[in-house]
Amino acid sequence: MKVKVGVNGYGTIGKRVAYAVMRQKDMRLMGVTKTKPDFEAYRAKELGIPVYAASEEFLPRFEKAGFEVAGTLGDLLEEVDVVIDATPGGMGAKNRPLYEKAGVKAVFEGGEKASTAEVSFVAQANYEKALGRDYVRVVSCNTTGLTRTLNAIKDYIDYAYAVMIRRAADPDDSRRGPVNAIKPTVEVPSHHGPDVQTVIPVNIETTAFVVPTTLMHVHSVMVELKEPLTREDVIDIFEDTTRVLLFEKERGFESTAQLIEFARDLHREWNNLYEIAVWKESISVKGNRLFYIQAVHQESDVVPENVDAIRAMFEMAGKWESIKKTNKSLGILK
Amino acid sequence: MKVKVGVNGYGTIGKRVAYAVMRQKDMRLMGVTKTKPDFEAYRAKELGIPVYAASEEFLPRFEKAGFEVAGTLGDLLEEVDVVIDATPGGMGAKNRPLYEKAGVKAVFEGGEKASTAEVSFVAQANYEKALGRDYVRVVSCNTTGLTRTLNAIKDYIDYAYAVMIRRAADPDDSRRGPVNAIKPTVEVPSHHGPDVQTVIPVNIETTAFVVPTTLMHVHSVMVELKEPLTREDVIDIFEDTTRVLLFEKERGFESTAQLIEFARDLHREWNNLYEIAVWKESISVKGNRLFYIQAVHQESDVVPENVDAIRAMFEMAGKWESIKKTNKSLGILK
Amino acid sequence: MKVKVGVNGYGTIGKRVAYAVMRQKDMRLMGVTKTKPDFEAYRAKELGIPVYAASEEFLPRFEKAGFEVAGTLGDLLEEVDVVIDATPGGMGAKNRPLYEKAGVKAVFEGGEKASTAEVSFVAQANYEKALGRDYVRVVSCNTTGLTRTLNAIKDYIDYAYAVMIRRAADPDDSRRGPVNAIKPTVEVPSHHGPDVQTVIPVNIETTAFVVPTTLMHVHSVMVELKEPLTREDVIDIFEDTTRVLLFEKERGFESTAQLIEFARDLHREWNNLYEIAVWKESISVKGNRLFYIQAVHQESDVVPENVDAIRAMFEMAGKWESIKKTNKSLGILK
Amino acid sequence: MKVKVGVNGYGTIGKRVAYAVMRQKDMRLMGVTKTKPDFEAYRAKELGIPVYAASEEFLPRFEKAGFEVAGTLGDLLEEVDVVIDATPGGMGAKNRPLYEKAGVKAVFEGGEKASTAEVSFVAQANYEKALGRDYVRVVSCNTTGLTRTLNAIKDYIDYAYAVMIRRAADPDDSRRGPVNAIKPTVEVPSHHGPDVQTVIPVNIETTAFVVPTTLMHVHSVMVELKEPLTREDVIDIFEDTTRVLLFEKERGFESTAQLIEFARDLHREWNNLYEIAVWKESISVKGNRLFYIQAVHQESDVVPENVDAIRAMFEMAGKWESIKKTNKSLGILK
Repeated sequence: MKVKVGVNGYGTIGKRVAYAVMRQKDMRLMGVTKTKPDFEAYRAKELGIPVYAASEEFLPRFEKAGFEVAGTLGDLLEEVDVVIDATPGGMGAKNRPLYEKAGVKAVFEGGEKASTAEVSFVAQANYEKALGRDYVRVVSCNTTGLTRTLNAIKDYIDYAYAVMIRRAADPDDSRRGPVNAIKPTVEVPSHHGPDVQTVIPVNIETTAFVVPTTLMHVHSVMVELKEPLTREDVIDIFEDTTRVLLFEKERGFESTAQLIEFARDLHREWNNLYEIAVWKESISVKGNRLFYIQAVHQESDVVPENVDAIRAMFEMAGKWESIKKTNKSLGILK
Repeated sequence: MKVKVGVNGYGTIGKRVAYAVMRQKDMRLMGVTKTKPDFEAYRAKELGIPVYAASEEFLPRFEKAGFEVAGTLGDLLEEVDVVIDATPGGMGAKNRPLYEKAGVKAVFEGGEKASTAEVSFVAQANYEKALGRDYVRVVSCNTTGLTRTLNAIKDYIDYAYAVMIRRAADPDDSRRGPVNAIKPTVEVPSHHGPDVQTVIPVNIETTAFVVPTTLMHVHSVMVELKEPLTREDVIDIFEDTTRVLLFEKERGFESTAQLIEFARDLHREWNNLYEIAVWKESISVKGNRLFYIQAVHQESDVVPENVDAIRAMFEMAGKWESIKKTNKSLGILK
Repeated sequence: MKVKVGVNGYGTIGKRVAYAVMRQKDMRLMGVTKTKPDFEAYRAKELGIPVYAASEEFLPRFEKAGFEVAGTLGDLLEEVDVVIDATPGGMGAKNRPLYEKAGVKAVFEGGEKASTAEVSFVAQANYEKALGRDYVRVVSCNTTGLTRTLNAIKDYIDYAYAVMIRRAADPDDSRRGPVNAIKPTVEVPSHHGPDVQTVIPVNIETTAFVVPTTLMHVHSVMVELKEPLTREDVIDIFEDTTRVLLFEKERGFESTAQLIEFARDLHREWNNLYEIAVWKESISVKGNRLFYIQAVHQESDVVPENVDAIRAMFEMAGKWESIKKTNKSLGILK
Repeated sequence: MKVKVGVNGYGTIGKRVAYAVMRQKDMRLMGVTKTKPDFEAYRAKELGIPVYAASEEFLPRFEKAGFEVAGTLGDLLEEVDVVIDATPGGMGAKNRPLYEKAGVKAVFEGGEKASTAEVSFVAQANYEKALGRDYVRVVSCNTTGLTRTLNAIKDYIDYAYAVMIRRAADPDDSRRGPVNAIKPTVEVPSHHGPDVQTVIPVNIETTAFVVPTTLMHVHSVMVELKEPLTREDVIDIFEDTTRVLLFEKERGFESTAQLIEFARDLHREWNNLYEIAVWKESISVKGNRLFYIQAVHQESDVVPENVDAIRAMFEMAGKWESIKKTNKSLGILK
């Protein structure tokens, strides 16, 4: 028997999760919602995915365009066991009563507050906590990225400090700026540190900046160690960590541009780089401080987490069994 | 029997042509050259493609990295019937004597002067001219883009004027700028007009500008008609033209960002958009003047041309047979 | 006696016009309005300019910040003979009844429709039409730029076609994008051609594109001549045209970046480049077609027009007398 | 008597220092060198500054353009007491023997190694060390920025860690990229920390990133305190620190764009922001850690340091007397 999945919000994250769900043998994609009949909606239809209006208020748009929908969100909820809420940040909390009323489980994304769900989730860090749950929040791309690497070394961390250099807009967003400026989050430390702590109990503080690029976020991580670790230890640990990859500048990875080119060379769908990219040369230990630099593909790193979250919520598989299945189905390298 | 193909220069164009060659039933990729063992070289190896050093001078780089090459360009030339010269602009002319000496045919790219080859080529415009030739030049991405649409309406053109707004750097290039400026080619008209004329005899002038984006070039085309055409005629013609697609802003295509997203949604390898993208709403006729706006994916639009050029040079297929085969193999929509 | 001037909207254009007004011996700046107490408001105060709230609804913002205002727009209107309406596009039309009621003349900017005022204005083209008027519209930066050069050669123009490559956001705007895309105006021809025609009766069509830069707009202009003109003629004409400057790539002006650097090297306030910059090398005549490329500093080229408009409306000076005074006061080179 | 100053390299830094020297009553600008007759050279001439060829090899360029030079560098050196070496990074070391031979003192810039000079200099931190010296190095824009704020709190610093988000190219540079990528310095910690230590003995480590913007560098600073400090203490200290200014997001400073706009609103020459800009809201103390975010105007923050260095080298004034004079002459706010 397959778990029946709906995706509410077929945008940057939603379309990737829908694709990932379609690749799982134990899941079935029942449909997705859209607020307007744009090219993404037409593409979904071409792929045979039932498209629902995100709410009744949007029906006229579809009618006007002659785009036949399968119904509205309410109809989709009747068909599914679980809904992925990939709506814009903050809307998930407003949607939760709908899901409760329909009696479906829900996965929320990182734009929601932790309190929207029962557990905040990164598969390799706390899969078990989501077992059997009804409402799980997959944390944001940045939080997922920090959690993956910090979790791998968490026993050694006395204190972690991460500076996050964030992309201004996604590649398909031609409205948001800035065109030529660096924009700090002046609330210091930023909210990203506490967000990591919703997943793992690590002592962390962060600051954040927006810069005019679309490709990836980059994190400069500094860790004060409570137990000694060598550079080689860290390389070994990261090499053994799922969904984390080491890249060498030596091989031409001089910026985020070449990391994305790597994903393109792999012919990854949407050039997804599900794995957190750590620059191998940047891993460095000075005294009791460890440094490393990592990049996060904001469009895709949380996609496998959504799949794993579903498996945990329905107790369909143990942690590593699920991670393995998800990785294999998406071509995640390790 | 398959034509044996080598690719000299496995970069932005080279790697895409190599991929395309691998997808042709009547061709066989014998190997590619690299100047250094970067991640593209490693990827080629993973794909089972023999990697040769572009010349002996580069061998130490490969040796130092422990990257075993299959030989040098000279060795590759002994294995092939035809070489795709995808080296940086101007190097093809220097390489031609090597190809002559080795007795192999060669396809050059648009960075070379027309005089480097016997014919300048865009398949749908002048396939026949390349039949049986030894040296063919696939014209540049911009010239290919202009030729595809102008050729479709060439009988109506009294005069064409195109303003080309060019991307500053390819997506995987993190060195070239500008970061924040518009850079005109002050030689007016620019060389792009005469370059179109190496393929089709159309009365055309152009100007060109570089702007800080990586995704696509955009052309603002104005045509003075010698015979009347309506907007609907032009739409019909372009809809019947291979490797040209119409896109509607109405469906969300408000910039080059969404055109690339369309290719990503198709899961095209490297988000290749082989087809020239014309904004449907932009097609407009005022008096005897036709206007339209098109976008060109500089990384990929010439790829199918390279494949067709090979077929023509070896007289393996007629024009439409080749175009059809190439289109089908690459998923070109029409 | 000096004309008393108020500026409604102390933003990008407003603050520059306020500064320009302060430098005129026959004008007196009575105050400016702001919607919020940001650093521009504090700077105005430091300069001794009375700051008024743009309307009563904004008063709480100022009170909360402890910023004492001189009153509201209504109070300012009682003090002035003429108001410069530099509010966001479309608001001028809504404000006009206020100005009428207060019995003050008004200068509107290019974000307003032509019908908002009695005349659309570029000083060197139609100063006389504004003589004695109550409501004058200074046209947009782009329209002003096109009008300045086209007006100089208008007797020779059979048809003009301009492609406008527009900056995405002003330098002090860190919100608007795109970060990495080219955005066409798909309505072709664009509205800019008809806008030029509100000032001079020239046969013109335009297309327009937005690109990710903040510095200047660039225009690729093509003119079909009804009478012969040589390249040298055009150079002579432009050299004799006020508020138009020729720049040579040969001297390092390879992009808009160096044009702005030129203004910075002059220590122009806000690096204003009031003059339209034409690349000398780009001026070219082929048969009956003239080509040239110009750049427009969107933040400042309309500033002198506002000053001249005031003089015309109060019949304080003849055309060339006003232009000369304005030019001298602002350091305009010719 | 005035110290006679020459500037070798009239580019981004050189032209600003030349301007600053001209504003000092105790200095006299004798001339500047250029490698080519570009618009900056013509501007120097307009300002009455003697222009010399940077070396004999460049003379033909000037001759070809009909630009009369006053001689070559050798001639300039005969006229001066001290030369500001504002040549590209690394060239200063090569030039030093010329200066030694000519018997002139020299100020080098931050692109040179510390060993090129006798002392590395930031006026407010170690003015005294440059007293009477012959060769002084003004450190880089980033190092100057870090030194100014860290020096103010140096007695409290146990350890400082700064992440530097650097602008990719200066505003007048239209060649360098990247257009759309984040580029880390993978050597971690970066060289900037040790560079600070050439000026003040503080325990500091840094990492660095290049992003596609031209306006300013931004630093995310974290300090581990050895003695308690409150947020208010730090605000007080920075308010009392010369060449450091506090800016509030509350007043509209949401990014580097508005900081530069502030300098433009002041009508600063070239929008110079000589002062290090600290976001007031970002100053934060959590336990024993202090955080703050600052921005550095890479084109100008070192300019006053060059002036002070000259005064120290000729023992023309004490530390605070020199700083006061320099500040006043350049309009530095405090």
